[in-house]
Amino acid sequence: MLLYDARRSGNCYKVRLMLARTGIRYDRREISVTDRSDREHLIGRTANPALRVPTLHLDDGRFLAESCAIIWFLAEGTPLLPADAFERAQVLQWMFFEQYEHEPNIAVARYWLHIAGLEDIDPKALAAKQEGGRRALQAMEHHLTTRAFFVAERFTIADIALYAYTHVAEEAGIDMRPYPAIAAWLERVAAQPGHITIDD
Amino acid sequence: MLLYDARRSGNCYKVRLMLARTGIRYDRREISVTDRSDREHLIGRTANPALRVPTLHLDDGRFLAESCAIIWFLAEGTPLLPADAFERAQVLQWMFFEQYEHEPNIAVARYWLHIAGLEDIDPKALAAKQEGGRRALQAMEHHLTTRAFFVAERFTIADIALYAYTHVAEEAGIDMRPYPAIAAWLERVAAQPGHITIDD
Repeated sequence: MLLYDARRSGNCYKVRLMLARTGIRYDRREISVTDRSDREHLIGRTANPALRVPTLHLDDGRFLAESCAIIWFLAEGTPLLPADAFERAQVLQWMFFEQYEHEPNIAVARYWLHIAGLEDIDPKALAAKQEGGRRALQAMEHHLTTRAFFVAERFTIADIALYAYTHVAEEAGIDMRPYPAIAAWLERVAAQPGHITIDD
Repeated sequence: MLLYDARRSGNCYKVRLMLARTGIRYDRREISVTDRSDREHLIGRTANPALRVPTLHLDDGRFLAESCAIIWFLAEGTPLLPADAFERAQVLQWMFFEQYEHEPNIAVARYWLHIAGLEDIDPKALAAKQEGGRRALQAMEHHLTTRAFFVAERFTIADIALYAYTHVAEEAGIDMRPYPAIAAWLERVAAQPGHITIDD
C-alpha cells in the first residue's frame, strides 16, 4: 500500500497509528501541507476528488480517502471496530464529531500557530477557533468523566480519531489543565500495545 | 422513536429522508437553530454531548447523534448501504467529505443568508464560505461526470448525505449553472421512490 502522507498532520497520523496496529507494511509519500499548489498533479482527482491527505492507494489499484473512512476500512474485522450495529454507529458518531467540531477548530489553530507559523494571524479568528476547540474538549471531558474509552468501554478507532489532534491541542494554544478526564484517557491510549507517536 | 429535529436543517432532513424510506414511524421535536441558548435543557449532554440536532432517541432509551452516523445506523441491512467492505468505506469517504468540505461552507452560508437572515454578514467571510462551497461542488461535479450515483453506481446514503445541502445550495448564494452533472444527479435522487422534500 502507498499512503499519501504528511508527517505532522493529525489526520495522516490516525492512519499511521491504525496501520501500526495491523502490522501491514506500506510506503509513505510526503505531501506538503503548507504548499498546496501542486496537489492536482501530486495526488490527482481520480485518487481523491478533494485532493487531500491522507489518501490510501491499495495494492489492487483502488484509492480511499478521508482519514476516518480509511481507518474504518482498515479496522474492519479487528477488535478496534465493534461488531454490534449500535456500537458501530456510536464509533461513527464520535468520528463525525471529530471531523466537524474538533478538527476544524483545534487542527486549524495548531496549523496557524505551529505548522505554518504564520505571523499575521487574525487574533479574533484564532480566538474563535480556540473557543470552538474548548467546546469540543468540554463535550469529550463530559463523556470521559464516567468512561475509560469513547465507545463500548474499550479502545476503538473512535479513540484513535480523537487522539490525533487532542494530544497536540496545546500546540493550538489551548490550556489542557481543565480536562483531567481527557488527560487520563490520553495516557490510556498512549499505553496501548503497538502505539506509535506522531513523529515515528 | 423521537427525533430532535429542525425543519429547515439539511442535517435533520437527511434523517427524515432516510426514515421515510424505512417506513419507521417516529415523533419530531422541533429545536430552534437560531436560538441555541437552552439546548443544555432541551437536548441535554447525556443525549448528545455536542448538543446538536439531529439527535435520535431510540425506543429502548438509547441516543444516537450526528446525522451521518444516524442514517448509517438506519440504513444497515437495507439496499441503501452496500454489503461490500470497500464500498461501505467509500460511502463513509463521501459522508466525511460532506461534513468537512461541503456542509461547513454551504450550510453556513445558507444559514447566514436564508435561515438567520443576518443583516450584518461579513462579506469577506461569506465569500470565503461560498468559495469553499464551490470547491466542494467542483469535486462532486468531477466525480459525477462519469457516474450516476456517488458509490457502487446505485442510490446509497452517500447520496442522501450530499443531497441535503446541495439541493438548496442556491440559498447559500451559489450559482449552480456550472454543475450540469450535479443537476442531473439531483433529479435522479428526487425521483427515488419514497422521496420527501425538506418541507414535508
